[in-house]
Amino acid sequence: MRLGFRHIQLISPYHYRISLPPRRFSTTPMAASQVNKTAHAFDKSRLEALLNRRFFYAPAFEIYGGVAGLYDYGPPGSSLQANIIAEWRKHFIVEEHMLELDTTIMTPAAVFETSGHVARFADWMVKDSKTGDVLRADHLVGGVLEARLAGDKEARGLAAAPVAEDKKKKKKTAKAAAVKLEDDVVKEYESTLAQVVLLSCSRWIWATQPEIYLPYGPCPIRHLDNYTGPQLGELCRKYKIRNPDTDNEVGEPQQFNLMFTSSIGPTGQHPGYLRPETAQGHFLNFSRLLEFNNGRIPFASAQVGRSFRNEISPRAGLLRVREFTMAEIEHYVDPDDKSHVRFPEVRSQVLTLLDRNVQEAGSSRTTQMTVGEAVDKGIIANETLGYFIARISQYLVKIGINPARLRFRQHMGNEMAHYATDCWDAEIENATGWTECVGCADRAAYDLSVHTDRTGHPLVVRQALKEPIVTEKETAEWNKKLLGKTFKGDAGVLQKLVEGLPEAELVRLKGELAQGSAVVKSADGKEFQLTPELVTIERKVFKQSIREYTPNVIEPSFGLGRILYTLLEHSFWAREQDIERGVSLSSYLHTVWALIAGLQVLSLPPIVAPTKVLIVPLSAREEFAPIVQEVSNKLRRAGVFSRVDDSNTSIGKRYARNDELGTPFGITVDFASVQNRTMTLRERDTTDQRIGSIDDVIAAVTDLVLGNIDWEQACERLPAYDGVQAVE
Amino acid sequence: MRLGFRHIQLISPYHYRISLPPRRFSTTPMAASQVNKTAHAFDKSRLEALLNRRFFYAPAFEIYGGVAGLYDYGPPGSSLQANIIAEWRKHFIVEEHMLELDTTIMTPAAVFETSGHVARFADWMVKDSKTGDVLRADHLVGGVLEARLAGDKEARGLAAAPVAEDKKKKKKTAKAAAVKLEDDVVKEYESTLAQVVLLSCSRWIWATQPEIYLPYGPCPIRHLDNYTGPQLGELCRKYKIRNPDTDNEVGEPQQFNLMFTSSIGPTGQHPGYLRPETAQGHFLNFSRLLEFNNGRIPFASAQVGRSFRNEISPRAGLLRVREFTMAEIEHYVDPDDKSHVRFPEVRSQVLTLLDRNVQEAGSSRTTQMTVGEAVDKGIIANETLGYFIARISQYLVKIGINPARLRFRQHMGNEMAHYATDCWDAEIENATGWTECVGCADRAAYDLSVHTDRTGHPLVVRQALKEPIVTEKETAEWNKKLLGKTFKGDAGVLQKLVEGLPEAELVRLKGELAQGSAVVKSADGKEFQLTPELVTIERKVFKQSIREYTPNVIEPSFGLGRILYTLLEHSFWAREQDIERGVSLSSYLHTVWALIAGLQVLSLPPIVAPTKVLIVPLSAREEFAPIVQEVSNKLRRAGVFSRVDDSNTSIGKRYARNDELGTPFGITVDFASVQNRTMTLRERDTTDQRIGSIDDVIAAVTDLVLGNIDWEQACERLPAYDGVQAVE
Repeated sequence: MRLGFRHIQLISPYHYRISLPPRRFSTTPMAASQVNKTAHAFDKSRLEALLNRRFFYAPAFEIYGGVAGLYDYGPPGSSLQANIIAEWRKHFIVEEHMLELDTTIMTPAAVFETSGHVARFADWMVKDSKTGDVLRADHLVGGVLEARLAGDKEARGLAAAPVAEDKKKKKKTAKAAAVKLEDDVVKEYESTLAQVVLLSCSRWIWATQPEIYLPYGPCPIRHLDNYTGPQLGELCRKYKIRNPDTDNEVGEPQQFNLMFTSSIGPTGQHPGYLRPETAQGHFLNFSRLLEFNNGRIPFASAQVGRSFRNEISPRAGLLRVREFTMAEIEHYVDPDDKSHVRFPEVRSQVLTLLDRNVQEAGSSRTTQMTVGEAVDKGIIANETLGYFIARISQYLVKIGINPARLRFRQHMGNEMAHYATDCWDAEIENATGWTECVGCADRAAYDLSVHTDRTGHPLVVRQALKEPIVTEKETAEWNKKLLGKTFKGDAGVLQKLVEGLPEAELVRLKGELAQGSAVVKSADGKEFQLTPELVTIERKVFKQSIREYTPNVIEPSFGLGRILYTLLEHSFWAREQDIERGVSLSSYLHTVWALIAGLQVLSLPPIVAPTKVLIVPLSAREEFAPIVQEVSNKLRRAGVFSRVDDSNTSIGKRYARNDELGTPFGITVDFASVQNRTMTLRERDTTDQRIGSIDDVIAAVTDLVLGNIDWEQACERLPAYDGVQAVE
Repeated sequence: MRLGFRHIQLISPYHYRISLPPRRFSTTPMAASQVNKTAHAFDKSRLEALLNRRFFYAPAFEIYGGVAGLYDYGPPGSSLQANIIAEWRKHFIVEEHMLELDTTIMTPAAVFETSGHVARFADWMVKDSKTGDVLRADHLVGGVLEARLAGDKEARGLAAAPVAEDKKKKKKTAKAAAVKLEDDVVKEYESTLAQVVLLSCSRWIWATQPEIYLPYGPCPIRHLDNYTGPQLGELCRKYKIRNPDTDNEVGEPQQFNLMFTSSIGPTGQHPGYLRPETAQGHFLNFSRLLEFNNGRIPFASAQVGRSFRNEISPRAGLLRVREFTMAEIEHYVDPDDKSHVRFPEVRSQVLTLLDRNVQEAGSSRTTQMTVGEAVDKGIIANETLGYFIARISQYLVKIGINPARLRFRQHMGNEMAHYATDCWDAEIENATGWTECVGCADRAAYDLSVHTDRTGHPLVVRQALKEPIVTEKETAEWNKKLLGKTFKGDAGVLQKLVEGLPEAELVRLKGELAQGSAVVKSADGKEFQLTPELVTIERKVFKQSIREYTPNVIEPSFGLGRILYTLLEHSFWAREQDIERGVSLSSYLHTVWALIAGLQVLSLPPIVAPTKVLIVPLSAREEFAPIVQEVSNKLRRAGVFSRVDDSNTSIGKRYARNDELGTPFGITVDFASVQNRTMTLRERDTTDQRIGSIDDVIAAVTDLVLGNIDWEQACERLPAYDGVQAVE
């Protein structure tokens, strides 16, 4: 259909209003998959402008100048996050009957001393020698060397690739751009960088491997050989690296613990930390959880909550923040049996894997493989880990992550903690590279063991054995009174000595004692004379009916802000503009308006979209109000969250505005609704419109939102709309 | 039905198992309201034991010795809290189309300097002169005087009322018990206490009235005349008050700010606080929210989130904690129009009110009144405040708060901040008295104004006036060059002087200037000669088409932990035991078991109950598994959260265990389910059982959980169960 002058209402010779009809009127339904979403290249700055303008999120304390790494979520961002969490609860907690927890953020120091965070949860920082400004040592070295290499490329007449998103940094980079370097210096820089860049790897996994420090960020695949603080200091001196903002020298790298510190109570004597992960809150409650689960294992605890990391200089939007919402699962299993009862359900699930061996061979080529095969081949260590990796993949795809931009990367041998069996990160590709968004690690018995050791409270499972284990052994029974009287201070030594003897020795002693007496010698040559009055050696039967063990922990840990941001990137596109369609004034103006305002779309799946249905009355006229109210009530009763937009702009603009908010469906209430009780239903991605009775449309949209049908099925129920009535 | 030996299974002469049948088999349904829930007096310690044992919540870091005022919620507590929040979202955010926010906890100091928290959000504390232990000054004075009065009563032969819940304190109190006081000393103590006790009033309301400090806790109704720190110090000296734990003297009271402090970033130069309320996060985002709402007002923002208060010595369970979840609404209105469009919907809602006048007359007698009447009579200041009070009341009753133990108490004149118009607290009665759980205040323009002043960012509404306001007035136009040349430093003074003149004076000047020249005199007698070249005075027309104003804020603020705890108190009861029913061994043992284990019930409404339906297969036999699975799946599809308990204990015990968790309905799967596809449905409060086909029972229980029908209606659908099959 061609746009024409009948859509233009002349108000004055210089002022006309264009009523934009729905843009597509095809009578054959278009599948969402047929929509060309790549007509425009992805533009991160346009997405960020949209997210800021529509208040998905914004820098916190903006009117006070903001604080780096702290963001507030506005209405659409909060709803999106709430829906991501609700789906997470359904997919994991409800489905698996996990035990949910809500533990405190403020934590006494002793807990993180035990877990290792106080000693090792730190970054290396350097101070500007004059201004005192603080920089992250690895970022500084990496940034300066990259800038020099870029400058070298420019000097050699090669195109300099943009080094950093940060405008300020870019400027500095440009400044240093013209200097050509010696060939061997280039080589040296590149080899240094290969190792430094790894430092911008993710830190989610830190908790699973405290001895190796890995900070946040996109994770290129390189061999791990990262630098310690002193080594970074050495690099600064060797390459004469200065603070690029001031050109001042920097001091020696110092460790900076990334936990926010505080103090509990009024005396100032009880240091506290804000938790950097929710996991410790699970572990400390293990005994209560086990009891709640009637002593049975395996089971899992789950928690969604805020955590804090005092980043030195966060600059990557939602991908590196100082305060964030996590969702963590701790699944407790028998170390001798890591099978999973529901593994057969996911066995045939195909995953994109980047395993340890491939990376260690210097490649980043992924493989498609079923999780069943990966476990069978020993690529994934055990069924439980495989089960969770498959479930994580299902979840991410369900909420709208593009499966083609999702991979599971295994930690390399040297990335892994000594106690960890296996660890895989769900990495999601975005404009900055591949970012770890979920970690899935087998933490073995580490956490429960260290807290047991520190507190003396046994975080263990005691299981009645079906068949008691029966053993027989020679056992010494002492006459304690006589023992003490005879050997005084040496009594204990003697007792230990005899009880530690091997079975054969005890049999020998027993024989000698039957003869009247026996002699034992200690390691330092002391001799003890034993008599039958003093000690009896007898063969006794021992029956062990309880098995006690520290369970192992499989931990899927989700960074919800990172998932939310990458989901927004994957959902964002701009509509293809059909400028050839007509050369009428309205078409021209439409195109110009679209180019200026931007017909941008967030194709969020209904399951997570902040608003499911937009109700658009043709105008704010009173005659539409009862129908709008009726539709709104019926949708609410059906459990579908809708919003009404009766603002004083064209229907097209109102739809465009809600395409930006990711609202998947729109219902137009117009004169036909009043006269014939029909409404039109619009799908966001195709902009297709269908028509039906009020109740049919409500039934169809409810099924669409609940995921019972897709758009093509809805089109079978509702005829195409020819577009005449909307512009009456 | 009488219990008999057929319920006892003999295992050995000294070991028998009792299969408890459902206790009631009446064929006429019993309304939940007919259940006698007060057969046993409320016993707080029994409730607390239950909550701890079933892990509703427990002291955080328990295995590390715990930290006062920090609690972890276990599985039932987390679910209960999640359901309370979900219902809050539905009742407020969805229903009113509020704009949800999720802002950060970590806050730079400047924000709380502006809001007044840095200067005034503090308690008075004293230090033990030898041990350095810290005590809250008001608690100390109050506690010691109360103990002495109790001791006096005992010495006079009157019953000494228990003074504190705290066991340690009780012991100390008992020690001091025997001393009789002079009559006038008793009088003096009582009059002092009348004022000190008010200090254990709630602090929710603090934010609305920063100049008056009111700490947490139950709120007795007394006139406000609280003590300052120096006055508390004076009382300690005058009454020789010492630390009752050590008998040491205490030092001078010092102010202790109740915000947890921290530091943002690595330099240590950016002090931060953990927010003590979520409200500031709303206010700072006001401009963005207004824009998101298309510039329209009124609207509300809402947020559920964690807040922190570093209490000096919290000892009241969930009623006074250091970390808690709040839900806050900030509703922005035109200060000239506080009507509410939905007020007619709540007009006839009856509230229990305790208004300001009654309290100022020294009474605590409440009045039942419709909210319409209260607003009409000016008892509640305006419609919007009245609307929210009514909605808060509906919400609390809906989730299970006993309406007879809910009242709205108005702040007295001297409790109220100078800028606040009106403030009401929803107080819920519990074992410790009346506790404020929701504050509902008209904060006027205070918050938005102070942040505007501090940041220069105008947090205002700009509204196009329908009819521009047209005014005419005499206006001076200066020849700036000549003005400066002629009067130099005095030019500004002169300009201000003339422009500040009243209309009549300007008319006079205009006349004189028309004659050639005029003279004006400043307040300090200086004379200025004016000429027509220097200034022209003309009548001009001004048209104001935009109205700019700072909106007022109505703030309902919910302490979710307090609501959760009082709800648990209101839901808790113990079943009446029919010991007369039979003297059989089983009946006797049943009673003994009930007395020991306690047949305790939490009558949580289905809407908030952690688990809605318990599925109980007669045993863990495989033949029941398919039906259990079928029922579980069908319920999940219907949106009903169920759990299966197939543990190896009697059905009666499994039900009793789930009565303690507040599970409202139980479904028994037995042999009849396999043979005839019937199941029984049990209601928690009445223990009534009905029978029906699998699908009928699922349909009935779904309607029950969704609140479509009540138990009596369910009984019309499903016949009574005679109890034969369950014990096959």
